[in-house]
Amino acid sequence: QSAVTLYGLIDVSVGQAQAPGAAANKGVDSGNMTTSFWGVKGSEDLGGGLSAVFALESFLRADVAAAGRFGADTFWARSAYVGLSSGAGTVTLGRNTTSLFVNTLIFNAFGDSFGFSPAIRQTFTSGNNFQVSGDTGWSDSVKYASPRFGGLTFTAHAALGEGNGGRNFGLSALYFGGPLGAGFAWQKVEKGGTTPDTTAWQLGASFNMAPVKFYAQYGTSDNKTIDNTTKVLGLGADWTIGNGKALLQWGKLSPDAGADRKTLSFGYDYLMSKRTDLYAVYMHDKLDGLSAGKSYGLGIRHRF
Amino acid sequence: QSAVTLYGLIDVSVGQAQAPGAAANKGVDSGNMTTSFWGVKGSEDLGGGLSAVFALESFLRADVAAAGRFGADTFWARSAYVGLSSGAGTVTLGRNTTSLFVNTLIFNAFGDSFGFSPAIRQTFTSGNNFQVSGDTGWSDSVKYASPRFGGLTFTAHAALGEGNGGRNFGLSALYFGGPLGAGFAWQKVEKGGTTPDTTAWQLGASFNMAPVKFYAQYGTSDNKTIDNTTKVLGLGADWTIGNGKALLQWGKLSPDAGADRKTLSFGYDYLMSKRTDLYAVYMHDKLDGLSAGKSYGLGIRHRF
Amino acid sequence: QSAVTLYGLIDVSVGQAQAPGAAANKGVDSGNMTTSFWGVKGSEDLGGGLSAVFALESFLRADVAAAGRFGADTFWARSAYVGLSSGAGTVTLGRNTTSLFVNTLIFNAFGDSFGFSPAIRQTFTSGNNFQVSGDTGWSDSVKYASPRFGGLTFTAHAALGEGNGGRNFGLSALYFGGPLGAGFAWQKVEKGGTTPDTTAWQLGASFNMAPVKFYAQYGTSDNKTIDNTTKVLGLGADWTIGNGKALLQWGKLSPDAGADRKTLSFGYDYLMSKRTDLYAVYMHDKLDGLSAGKSYGLGIRHRF
Repeated sequence: QSAVTLYGLIDVSVGQAQAPGAAANKGVDSGNMTTSFWGVKGSEDLGGGLSAVFALESFLRADVAAAGRFGADTFWARSAYVGLSSGAGTVTLGRNTTSLFVNTLIFNAFGDSFGFSPAIRQTFTSGNNFQVSGDTGWSDSVKYASPRFGGLTFTAHAALGEGNGGRNFGLSALYFGGPLGAGFAWQKVEKGGTTPDTTAWQLGASFNMAPVKFYAQYGTSDNKTIDNTTKVLGLGADWTIGNGKALLQWGKLSPDAGADRKTLSFGYDYLMSKRTDLYAVYMHDKLDGLSAGKSYGLGIRHRF
Repeated sequence: QSAVTLYGLIDVSVGQAQAPGAAANKGVDSGNMTTSFWGVKGSEDLGGGLSAVFALESFLRADVAAAGRFGADTFWARSAYVGLSSGAGTVTLGRNTTSLFVNTLIFNAFGDSFGFSPAIRQTFTSGNNFQVSGDTGWSDSVKYASPRFGGLTFTAHAALGEGNGGRNFGLSALYFGGPLGAGFAWQKVEKGGTTPDTTAWQLGASFNMAPVKFYAQYGTSDNKTIDNTTKVLGLGADWTIGNGKALLQWGKLSPDAGADRKTLSFGYDYLMSKRTDLYAVYMHDKLDGLSAGKSYGLGIRHRF
Repeated sequence: QSAVTLYGLIDVSVGQAQAPGAAANKGVDSGNMTTSFWGVKGSEDLGGGLSAVFALESFLRADVAAAGRFGADTFWARSAYVGLSSGAGTVTLGRNTTSLFVNTLIFNAFGDSFGFSPAIRQTFTSGNNFQVSGDTGWSDSVKYASPRFGGLTFTAHAALGEGNGGRNFGLSALYFGGPLGAGFAWQKVEKGGTTPDTTAWQLGASFNMAPVKFYAQYGTSDNKTIDNTTKVLGLGADWTIGNGKALLQWGKLSPDAGADRKTLSFGYDYLMSKRTDLYAVYMHDKLDGLSAGKSYGLGIRHRF
């Protein structure tokens, strides 16, 4: 018998999704604010300040009742690791979330929203030649997360190529003190025979002037495979109003070669509880030379 | 940390399955009385009579140790929804069970048995041109279930086409009072590019004269794609004997064009507890012009 | 509401895998000491010494965050059964683990290690014509496990062909008394149209002279499809040292026609707790006529 936690998040919304220059699709969608998932995790106290930790997390699409973020996604793609944690930090082996993804989601008003966050979308989904490669989690990887030194933590992350491209490396640092948050992440991706080799870095910051919190991030992704560097700038704020937050985020993606992209999202997230919120969001997504994509959603997000 | 329930049902039997005019297959089968599944569900009290609800339910085939009802089934096909519930009713978004399926299973002696219930089989699996289309659950859907008004409840259900055919709509009403139960369900299916468009309605009733309970249902499914209307009539009874029930159900499917089908099932379901039962069932399935299919099963069904 | 246990095991290691005559692959691997999995199980007391039991167990590859032991594996391939247990034994229906696999894992120093156990590898994975067929679990099967008679238990297991080859049968007996353990397993596999028909038997024994425990097993697998019989001999020991065990196992596979295989594995398994261990293992795998495969791993295994 064991102390295992079964948990997850379901996010379903009704609205419209429209890519720049494309037709609009109305429908019911899953995971626009946070990608829906379920998981199992636990830890075991081994004595002497040491503990074993593990997590298995599986994305899902509640709208079409399917596992994964897309048809060919692996079942445990969100996380699948086991490791040890102590006062000297935590080492986990398996599938580990990248620190670049964590840095991106911390320093923008829309968090880890693949549906509406300009920062997340421009860094991770803006066309094969512009985005960072290697996904938001790395398989076959070892990750180290430091303990807290004052407000400072850092991570190191490596994934082995295993005959399918080279290795991936990542480094990050994160600082929180008083109203200020700041983060830096760097990563180099060579794993995966068909994915582009990219090197990326990103600086992020937040400043809390309650009831308003400001966000900024800037970074570049250097696609070595086609020799193209892309800059991504993000600025945003959230404003606590009543039992919720007004959200505003703007982002600009500028590749050396290729069209600029400017994305603006705003909305309101009403917190029914710590675990359940309702949201209404609009996103205006402009790619130079194409008509703007206009997307919106009215949704519910529940953590269990 | 959260209050999540992990639950499910495993039904495995040994027996024979034979379609009319086809060879008999002996073997171990899963889900003949109730399709096996596991799931996770929960609710959160949001105060003021409001609560958040969710469910994720995954069919499985215990005999071959596989997920889904069939190879290409989506993982969470039984249910995948999140929503809000209050004194004004419950609204859920995602994958929701249809009320036509619920009406069919309530008003026949074999419940939701895809293996042995004439009512379920004739309504949902009797050949592509005769059955209702759109499955027993609708993806991309919003469902409303009313609170109880005396013995009356009703539902409304809509699924968006999302560029793959039109929309689905469903309406139903259910009444229970004293010995009588009665239900009506109507649905129109246009979603799904390759599935036929169908409109169906169904009336069902049950009457409890303990120890015997009688069941009747009648409905039609109008296949718009090939312009063929099918009538389905079902009559049945169960009789509480000892710690179990004798089960009897007869059904007749009559399409405008195509062969009539008459199916008779009978058996005994022994309740070892509220959660575990043993069953022995025989089904005689006759399609005009073909030799009868003779199927039977001896099985165990366990709810967890 | 029900008493369900959510459990599993995650085993991830860093090291090298090399087949005889092939290139070495360095990387992060899952399940080298015990194949990683998660599962759900439970039992219900039905009174009178009778209980209902079930289990659903799903293999996983934590390194690549995927379900199953390989891409086409079924989701619940480790176990998917329901049954009844009493003083007269336990009968389970569905997917049941074979007793030949259990006998193999009990009587060797590396247990159920598909990565490093010579016994497991030579019996279950040594090339299509040499290994036993029919996998370590049989779908569509009924298994009986006897109660304990003194130190003796036995099992009987049958899987139906269901039109895809013939039936499988298995019989086994297991004895534990004082320092001695002994087991016998026999099985005949005809199920599966494309898998070879094989008949196999195996004797195993262990003798505990604390702090050292010795293991021996011998068996043959007779491939009827190509008329080739393979003998497998295994000898091993573990030695409790400190909070762990030194492990040593040697095995020899000798087919009538085809190259002999000699495999030697040794290592140390450090028990951080009953649920968590760290291991370091080296395996030298020699197939006549090819250069030896040299594999090793440094890993962590956590049961939850």
